[in-house]
Amino acid sequence: MHATITRAYVKAGMPEDKAHTCARIHTESSRDGVYSHGLNRVERFVEYLHKGWVDPLGEPALASSLGNMEVYDGNLGPGILNAMHCMDRAIELAAANGMGMVSLRNTTHWMRGGAFGWQAAEKGYISICWTNTESCMPAWGGKSSAIGNNPFIIGIPRKGGHVVLDMAMSQYSYGKLQVTRLAGQKLPYPGGFDHEGQPTDDPGTIEETRRILPMGYWKGSGFAVMLDLLSALLSGGLTTAGIDKKNLGSCGSCCQVFMAFDPLKINDHAFVTGALSETINQLRNSVPANPGGAINFPGERSLQTRKENMQLGIPVDDGVWAKVKELAGR
Amino acid sequence: MHATITRAYVKAGMPEDKAHTCARIHTESSRDGVYSHGLNRVERFVEYLHKGWVDPLGEPALASSLGNMEVYDGNLGPGILNAMHCMDRAIELAAANGMGMVSLRNTTHWMRGGAFGWQAAEKGYISICWTNTESCMPAWGGKSSAIGNNPFIIGIPRKGGHVVLDMAMSQYSYGKLQVTRLAGQKLPYPGGFDHEGQPTDDPGTIEETRRILPMGYWKGSGFAVMLDLLSALLSGGLTTAGIDKKNLGSCGSCCQVFMAFDPLKINDHAFVTGALSETINQLRNSVPANPGGAINFPGERSLQTRKENMQLGIPVDDGVWAKVKELAGR
Repeated sequence: MHATITRAYVKAGMPEDKAHTCARIHTESSRDGVYSHGLNRVERFVEYLHKGWVDPLGEPALASSLGNMEVYDGNLGPGILNAMHCMDRAIELAAANGMGMVSLRNTTHWMRGGAFGWQAAEKGYISICWTNTESCMPAWGGKSSAIGNNPFIIGIPRKGGHVVLDMAMSQYSYGKLQVTRLAGQKLPYPGGFDHEGQPTDDPGTIEETRRILPMGYWKGSGFAVMLDLLSALLSGGLTTAGIDKKNLGSCGSCCQVFMAFDPLKINDHAFVTGALSETINQLRNSVPANPGGAINFPGERSLQTRKENMQLGIPVDDGVWAKVKELAGR
Repeated sequence: MHATITRAYVKAGMPEDKAHTCARIHTESSRDGVYSHGLNRVERFVEYLHKGWVDPLGEPALASSLGNMEVYDGNLGPGILNAMHCMDRAIELAAANGMGMVSLRNTTHWMRGGAFGWQAAEKGYISICWTNTESCMPAWGGKSSAIGNNPFIIGIPRKGGHVVLDMAMSQYSYGKLQVTRLAGQKLPYPGGFDHEGQPTDDPGTIEETRRILPMGYWKGSGFAVMLDLLSALLSGGLTTAGIDKKNLGSCGSCCQVFMAFDPLKINDHAFVTGALSETINQLRNSVPANPGGAINFPGERSLQTRKENMQLGIPVDDGVWAKVKELAGR
C-alpha cells in the first residue's frame, strides 16, 4: 500500500521523499483503522495537488521566533509534512526548555490529526495540537454552517501503548454518517437534527439537513469557536471565516498549533509510570455498564485495530484500491 | 454581599486581605450568574477551612523553574488565591516571552474556573487553564464513578466583551440537575442513565443512579482522562485516582495548569480585532434554529447576566443568604 500511494503522489508532482512520507502517514492511518484519512483520502489529495490547492513543493518557513514559541508560514505545502515539521520543532524546543510551542499558518489538511500526537509520543514527549478548518457545522442555536470541526489532539507517551485522544468537535463525522447509512443502521445516539429541528439518529436525514451536532451540544460548539480563534491569533493566520472565503477545498489555508512537553524535565520516570498506571487501573476497575464490557483509555481501540490489521492485513474498499492503483499507473 | 462573605472568611481564620480577595471572586461569580460557585458555595468553603481541608495561610511556593514554565506547590492554600497567583505568574512570563506556563499541584478547589480566564483577559492576555478533580463521573463504558469532571477554560480578550469558554466534562453539573428537579422540569437533552442503563432527561433519576453523562459521550470521557493526566504530569501532582485516596473533599489536593499568551507579540492590534469580529459576525449571521433565536459567542450569556444583575441586583436564595450572614456574625 505504502509503495503504491507513494507512486501516485510522485505522478502528481511530489518529490520522491515527500511523497514517501505522506504515503507512510496515510498507510499508518489505514493500519490503525482511520480509513477515512488513510487510503480513502488518497484520490482527493491527488485532486488537490492537480488543482494547485496543495503546493507539492511548499515548505514551512519561520515567520517569527519568541524564545520557545515559533510561528511558521506553511506556504500551502502538504499539510502532513508541514505539521510533522512543526511538531518536530516543538519537540526540539521542549528538549531544550521543558516545553515548546509552534504555530503554523497558511497550511493545508493535515489528514489524521492523531498522527502528530503519536509522532511526539514515539519520541517520549507529551503533546497538544489542533487545527482549524472551513465551516462545516452549525453553531449552537443556528442551523446554517458557521463553525469548523477543528480536531483537537492530546498525546501522552506510555510504555505498552501511548495514550492519545484525537477528537473532532462534531459528535460524528460525515464519514461515519455515510458508513452507518450504507449499512442500513441508526447512529448509537442522536447525531444531528431532522427537517423539523428535532434530534435524530438517522444518518441519511442528517446528511440531508447538514445540521450535524456538535459534541456535547453547546459545549462542542463553543470549544470549536475557541480553537478556531486560538489557531488564528497564535499563528497570525486565517479564522474559519477567512478559510471559507479562500475556498481552497477542505482546510486549504488553515492554521494549527503544536505544543510539546518533556515529562521527564518535571518528574522522574517512576512518577510518570505511576500516574499513568493508577489512572488506567482506575478505568479498568470500573464496573462495566454492560456485563463484560471494556473501559478503554483514549487511543486503546486504535492500538487494538492496529494489532488486528497487522495480523490479518489492512481492509480496503476494492473500488478505492483500484483507483489508487490507477493513479499510481499500476 | 462582598463585605459579608469577607467577614465570614475572616471569622473562619483567613487573614483580612485573603478573605477579601476570595470573597470578591465568589461575589463576581454570583454577579455573573454562576450561583453554584458564588454565594451558594460560601458555607461549604467555611466548612473546609474548619476541617483543615483548606489551609487559610497556605501559600504557593515555587517548586521548579524551566525557562517560561514554572511549577508551584499550592500547600493546600485557598484554591482561588493559588490559581490567581499562578495565572498572574503565567502572564508575567508571557509578557517577557510571548507565552508562559505555570502548573500547580497540591492545591484546593478554585471555585469558578472561568474567573481565571477573565483575570487574564482583563489584562489583555489569551489564556488556557484547567484543573483535575476527584472522581465524580463514570468513564464511557463504565457505570461506577472513575473520572473527574475537570473544568477547562479558554479566555480571549476582546474590547466590548471577552470571549471565555468555561466548561466541565459532564454534560450537566449536579447543581443543574438539582435546580431542574426542584423546578419540576426535565433536562433539555438526556444528561445521564437511568436504572435500566438507558439515557434519561429526568434529573432526579440521574441523581439516584449517579450515572451522569460526559459531554459528547466517549469524547468528554476521553478528554477528562487526558486533562487529568496532563494536570498531574505537568505539575508533579496527584491524578484523580490519587485525589480520591486523599479524601479531602471536593478537589482537595488537586492540580492545575495555567497558560498565558500575549496576542500582540504575534500580531498587531488590527489583526486581532479583525479575527475576532469576523468570527463573531459569522456566528451572528447564522440562520437561527428557532426564529429570532440568538447565537452567542462563548461567555456572552455571562455578560448578559452580569448586566442584568448589576441593574436589578444579584438574586440570592433567602436561606443561603441568612446562613452566610450567620457565618459572618451579622
